[in-house]
Amino acid sequence: MASYKHFLVDTPFPFIAHVQINRPKKMNAFLFRGDVARIQNRHRHPLPVPRHPSHNCSARDRAFCSGLDVQAASQNSVLAQKNSTPTDTARKAVAIKRHVQEFQDCISSAEKCEKPVICVMHGIAFGLAIDISSCADIRICTSDTKFAVKEVDIGLAADIGTLSRLPKIVGSFSWIKDVCLSARIFSGDEALRVGFVSYALPTKQDAIAKALELGKLLAEKSPVAVQGTKELLNHARDNKLADSLKYTGVWNSAAIQTTDVERAMLSGLKKTRPTFEKL
Amino acid sequence: MASYKHFLVDTPFPFIAHVQINRPKKMNAFLFRGDVARIQNRHRHPLPVPRHPSHNCSARDRAFCSGLDVQAASQNSVLAQKNSTPTDTARKAVAIKRHVQEFQDCISSAEKCEKPVICVMHGIAFGLAIDISSCADIRICTSDTKFAVKEVDIGLAADIGTLSRLPKIVGSFSWIKDVCLSARIFSGDEALRVGFVSYALPTKQDAIAKALELGKLLAEKSPVAVQGTKELLNHARDNKLADSLKYTGVWNSAAIQTTDVERAMLSGLKKTRPTFEKL
Amino acid sequence: MASYKHFLVDTPFPFIAHVQINRPKKMNAFLFRGDVARIQNRHRHPLPVPRHPSHNCSARDRAFCSGLDVQAASQNSVLAQKNSTPTDTARKAVAIKRHVQEFQDCISSAEKCEKPVICVMHGIAFGLAIDISSCADIRICTSDTKFAVKEVDIGLAADIGTLSRLPKIVGSFSWIKDVCLSARIFSGDEALRVGFVSYALPTKQDAIAKALELGKLLAEKSPVAVQGTKELLNHARDNKLADSLKYTGVWNSAAIQTTDVERAMLSGLKKTRPTFEKL
Amino acid sequence: MASYKHFLVDTPFPFIAHVQINRPKKMNAFLFRGDVARIQNRHRHPLPVPRHPSHNCSARDRAFCSGLDVQAASQNSVLAQKNSTPTDTARKAVAIKRHVQEFQDCISSAEKCEKPVICVMHGIAFGLAIDISSCADIRICTSDTKFAVKEVDIGLAADIGTLSRLPKIVGSFSWIKDVCLSARIFSGDEALRVGFVSYALPTKQDAIAKALELGKLLAEKSPVAVQGTKELLNHARDNKLADSLKYTGVWNSAAIQTTDVERAMLSGLKKTRPTFEKL
Amino acid sequence: MASYKHFLVDTPFPFIAHVQINRPKKMNAFLFRGDVARIQNRHRHPLPVPRHPSHNCSARDRAFCSGLDVQAASQNSVLAQKNSTPTDTARKAVAIKRHVQEFQDCISSAEKCEKPVICVMHGIAFGLAIDISSCADIRICTSDTKFAVKEVDIGLAADIGTLSRLPKIVGSFSWIKDVCLSARIFSGDEALRVGFVSYALPTKQDAIAKALELGKLLAEKSPVAVQGTKELLNHARDNKLADSLKYTGVWNSAAIQTTDVERAMLSGLKKTRPTFEKL
Amino acid sequence: MASYKHFLVDTPFPFIAHVQINRPKKMNAFLFRGDVARIQNRHRHPLPVPRHPSHNCSARDRAFCSGLDVQAASQNSVLAQKNSTPTDTARKAVAIKRHVQEFQDCISSAEKCEKPVICVMHGIAFGLAIDISSCADIRICTSDTKFAVKEVDIGLAADIGTLSRLPKIVGSFSWIKDVCLSARIFSGDEALRVGFVSYALPTKQDAIAKALELGKLLAEKSPVAVQGTKELLNHARDNKLADSLKYTGVWNSAAIQTTDVERAMLSGLKKTRPTFEKL
Repeated sequence: MASYKHFLVDTPFPFIAHVQINRPKKMNAFLFRGDVARIQNRHRHPLPVPRHPSHNCSARDRAFCSGLDVQAASQNSVLAQKNSTPTDTARKAVAIKRHVQEFQDCISSAEKCEKPVICVMHGIAFGLAIDISSCADIRICTSDTKFAVKEVDIGLAADIGTLSRLPKIVGSFSWIKDVCLSARIFSGDEALRVGFVSYALPTKQDAIAKALELGKLLAEKSPVAVQGTKELLNHARDNKLADSLKYTGVWNSAAIQTTDVERAMLSGLKKTRPTFEKL
Repeated sequence: MASYKHFLVDTPFPFIAHVQINRPKKMNAFLFRGDVARIQNRHRHPLPVPRHPSHNCSARDRAFCSGLDVQAASQNSVLAQKNSTPTDTARKAVAIKRHVQEFQDCISSAEKCEKPVICVMHGIAFGLAIDISSCADIRICTSDTKFAVKEVDIGLAADIGTLSRLPKIVGSFSWIKDVCLSARIFSGDEALRVGFVSYALPTKQDAIAKALELGKLLAEKSPVAVQGTKELLNHARDNKLADSLKYTGVWNSAAIQTTDVERAMLSGLKKTRPTFEKL
Repeated sequence: MASYKHFLVDTPFPFIAHVQINRPKKMNAFLFRGDVARIQNRHRHPLPVPRHPSHNCSARDRAFCSGLDVQAASQNSVLAQKNSTPTDTARKAVAIKRHVQEFQDCISSAEKCEKPVICVMHGIAFGLAIDISSCADIRICTSDTKFAVKEVDIGLAADIGTLSRLPKIVGSFSWIKDVCLSARIFSGDEALRVGFVSYALPTKQDAIAKALELGKLLAEKSPVAVQGTKELLNHARDNKLADSLKYTGVWNSAAIQTTDVERAMLSGLKKTRPTFEKL
Repeated sequence: MASYKHFLVDTPFPFIAHVQINRPKKMNAFLFRGDVARIQNRHRHPLPVPRHPSHNCSARDRAFCSGLDVQAASQNSVLAQKNSTPTDTARKAVAIKRHVQEFQDCISSAEKCEKPVICVMHGIAFGLAIDISSCADIRICTSDTKFAVKEVDIGLAADIGTLSRLPKIVGSFSWIKDVCLSARIFSGDEALRVGFVSYALPTKQDAIAKALELGKLLAEKSPVAVQGTKELLNHARDNKLADSLKYTGVWNSAAIQTTDVERAMLSGLKKTRPTFEKL
Repeated sequence: MASYKHFLVDTPFPFIAHVQINRPKKMNAFLFRGDVARIQNRHRHPLPVPRHPSHNCSARDRAFCSGLDVQAASQNSVLAQKNSTPTDTARKAVAIKRHVQEFQDCISSAEKCEKPVICVMHGIAFGLAIDISSCADIRICTSDTKFAVKEVDIGLAADIGTLSRLPKIVGSFSWIKDVCLSARIFSGDEALRVGFVSYALPTKQDAIAKALELGKLLAEKSPVAVQGTKELLNHARDNKLADSLKYTGVWNSAAIQTTDVERAMLSGLKKTRPTFEKL
Repeated sequence: MASYKHFLVDTPFPFIAHVQINRPKKMNAFLFRGDVARIQNRHRHPLPVPRHPSHNCSARDRAFCSGLDVQAASQNSVLAQKNSTPTDTARKAVAIKRHVQEFQDCISSAEKCEKPVICVMHGIAFGLAIDISSCADIRICTSDTKFAVKEVDIGLAADIGTLSRLPKIVGSFSWIKDVCLSARIFSGDEALRVGFVSYALPTKQDAIAKALELGKLLAEKSPVAVQGTKELLNHARDNKLADSLKYTGVWNSAAIQTTDVERAMLSGLKKTRPTFEKL
């Protein structure tokens, strides 16, 4: 099992990776010049998303994530404006743009992962926690999770993905603007009502159990079917209907040739459980 | 009244066609090399969507549709891999792509129909049932309808429209991914809560009655206004706001010249019921 | 304070403009050859959206708006077909297209306003009221507000923005088609359930109080952060994810250089209230 | 060999169809309520584009096409305004829109053909001739061909594809606007200079010989490679670079599995001529 | 005839406006805080594009335009960085963005003009001259016109339209990048070879004569056809083929109902010259 | 100076990197399982595009590149079909798709480079040579360079970028289809005529000299202006005009705040040569 400074990763069931943010003294606040960049450079998957298991399930411990570690960032980051090296505004802007894009790439890696990612949230889920969880495929939380799109309160528009993804994953634009402009806290129950999460459960144990149960269910299915479904849904979100239908036909022209279809159909008729090769 | 092998079509009220899938012994399972292709070739409207009536309302009997007839398909379709004619992978892929696109065109015809299509679902609505109903304008179901995006369970990503359309007709992307990746069954009540359907009613009779009532209401309105509204909403779903506003202006530059506007406005002021020419 | 013929505008708190439609004898019906065009020409902001205040909050009095003044329009507008000057159909179409685009621009100005716009609705909110409120960022109503996308009942497809914007601000496409095709009345509570509004409150006083409270909250935050958040969310609604993330990086490359970030972060650490320059 | 009323079709070489418009008394003018619709209904490929041969090459005899048969059209078409059945402007507009879309579909079929289409032009190539040839993959003409985008001279904007396709197949937008707005005649040599055609040859015999030579060359190559190249270029023309690259990867994930690659590579190394299965 | 401080406008033929930049002492350099803004505010058409004439033709005198008046701009514009009012980088950025958008709108008005715009260039055509002429429909120049995309030489990327429009109006991207990155001067003959202009003529008199001749030709045609052609070509440039074909059908559903079609067709058959109503 | 196995990199002038493909025994054929992947993993810039110099100029020695090393590839690559590890068609397709995307990313890095890339071609430029050079900003060749889009001759559609980029960098779609479908050889002079290259010069020395001269010219200009110009042109190629104009305004809102503008404008007025900070 891989070892990371600020993450715990284990494999509770075959093909399922359980990843937890592990910086308890800082309420799981994120450091963004430090670790993430280092993880990114070494692994190209800043959130440790294992490539090989068929499916994985990211559940994270304690306060899910209290957002950016503001104290650290105010001293040592692109947000710390003093003694920043380029003094020319345009050159500083280029440096910021590069930094934001790298940070976005780092967080977006969960979305680019070919396997489904389930995100469990509890306790506090502020700022960066929304950016991270918006990249997951399925979101689960505890009823009392405290969510906030907190960035306006530190003087900036959220730029690591929240504002780009929320309009594509939640239906009510009025609600999205309300929480993004006001930075107000909303509960897990409200998150369920508006469709940001799929399940809001009483306790952290319940939420993780639900995620693992769902993860196991997905892990038993054809990975060709599961990964194709993820890819085609993400494509549909971003494209016109006609383009999406066309892409689907091209995608399945190879995917349907899998022996998984025959295995699955026969199992269905025979009421047995199919097994599938890794993908 | 037209006659079809696997559909019942009648006209309960003027300008309303009531279409029912009629393959009761197979739980209304769909045959997809057989009938559909034949209907498509002869009528170019595989689901018998009449062109002339001003409005129609598609309600289907018994188990709405239990999806693809897997038994038939496993022996005699593109999914039956043995003895398939082209042996070269790329040529087989082209054959599959052509087949999927024809099948998509066949199902999409409900969406291309210029008149509103209302879809009533009850009993079981698996697989292809979701593809079909996603093309309708308004979905109505019974509270106890059992829905499932079932395709992953036969080893493939749904490719006849479900994955392309769901992200455009339901707001919660987390819910969409949950049901599409897990293939779990969800009820009519859940479908209402997330916005997949507009009404979930106690019984099949209630659901059909609601659809007919709504169909009659639409049939009494100006067909210029109704068909324009359908077209402009479908355009808006797929296009940028500025393009959509522009298209609207061009569309209405002819449509507003209809005498229906004057008739409707005068009727409104005089509290009478207007009548409109067929379209 | 500016003075308008059909609007009341006041400033209950710094940086907050309270705008009310003021045509009580006509249930706040809109005149669309008359005032709007005149306001548009003179102010280029037909709805009087002040440019200078940091934030504003548009709440409107009594029946929010009963839509187009049909009686006036039937005599003196593009909808009055008799004695219209160009007799050639194509030339008439060009005149209509120009008129619709000007009217759209007029109503869209609320959306183009760089500051957040909160729209409070109560009583009757028909036709044009939906066009107008769809341009606001956050919608608030009373539980008993009567909403209707009324245009089909006067023989036309809504063309001032409702059909273009609803699919981008509400998740359930089945619901949208239901209300737009049927022109049926729906309540404030239903509007809340489907996500058209963010809050449905018992009385008009409650609704306005909520809007003012929210407006004050936004007015205290960094205008760089607030306006950037509005812009980036609107961009995300219309663009592919990758384009949206890229635009965000470029936008923030200048915006993050604001001193508001430092002020906000220090205030956060020191638990004091930051103040920000006007924008 | 199929027989058509207004087309001559023969097969000079294996896998090559040579199609000629055959209405010499009318300078190959097109009839657009008559034949085309009938061909379309029966064959769904109005221009007789054979489905089975691997490649085809459309060269047309004498005056390539003198455009729409205006005399016939002025008496019996959507352009003949008297005694047209729907009298309501909006209903007439719907009828026109349906007609234009069917006509576009008819002409676009050459573009949708999976095999390459080469278009040879000579003599007069007015109006519809530009619509038709713009759908071909490669255009060849005689130096003295007389081209014109003639539609403005009969009072309408070309609507069967010329205005939609020219900006995507010729680089100079100033030249495109010049010829489309002025309807002036331009020669084959000018067409070559601006890139509308690939070759301008002295005589009709030369032009047809060039087309057949090119057709034979394409017919000897892997149809998997040739058809994929056509599809991917058409996709690139309409899509963003990133989307196009992605689509290419998905397309080739099946196509590269063809045995054609091995055959072609071995033949290349052994200096022999490969043969490929039909597609 | 309207009178402008820095433009000469006359009407050499019916329906043709001849507009000339008139600031000879400054080589027709453009002032961009001064006149343009004032013209824009008063007329909303900063370049005096008359609305009523059916067609117009913009030819400009002497050095076509030597670009921005750098001397004036360095003292009194957004480019003069000293004593600029907002000191916060983000607020300054907002001010710049607003300024650039207003300036773009000002220049883009030639493109939004519904009538064709022909631009004649001669002498020097630097910087802003490229922005302006890129908005015209047809470009004509003298062979010895000296063109340059000059902006990089004053330290900035051209932002008033050149970089956005050149890739859509010239085919060779390698040539575009060469001239935009190097700011090198290119001649009228080179402009013709790459397709930036449609005609390069020996003298200014020839160029203006050509423009007027072309303008007269367009002025005699159906304005419904001419304006539709301009609109549909501009739409095609920016949209996918399928969307463009669809838009065309909707556009012509009203436009084809013009009596201009009948007049033009009859005139064509009778060999007479048709006359058309103004549009 | 960095050292690479198959590339020579030197710095003939400040801020200019001169990169040459260096595999002379194999006519500079590309190995595509071997070196490129290794370079990619280690440097993330497979073509050694230095990050720090302000500008660079890629000129490559001898036969520019004879394409893929087919002999090596036929034994040891994704194209060698025997003994490939996944035997399931769908799993093989996923492996191919991943491979193609990595290869595309590798080649696209030249395009993503923020500095201008000039590509000099001579001798033979087949297959991959077109993919590589299409990513450059400016292409220069010798008159006798032999170009070919060679992929159809090894049984596949070019998938590393040629088919995606050519329609966006060359205007004549008929020419593009001709050379891509036929795989015929075309000369440097033809490449110049159609706009694929900007200059075709007699000898390799002339071509490299031209590239270095152009590189030096760019290296002396403001890097803020040069890099912004590259970015905005690439954005315009892929986006609608309105989106491109908007992006330009946001981009320059930071970029114009550079001191380079003042330096450049003053130098222009004083006729001195400005110097700029690195970017």
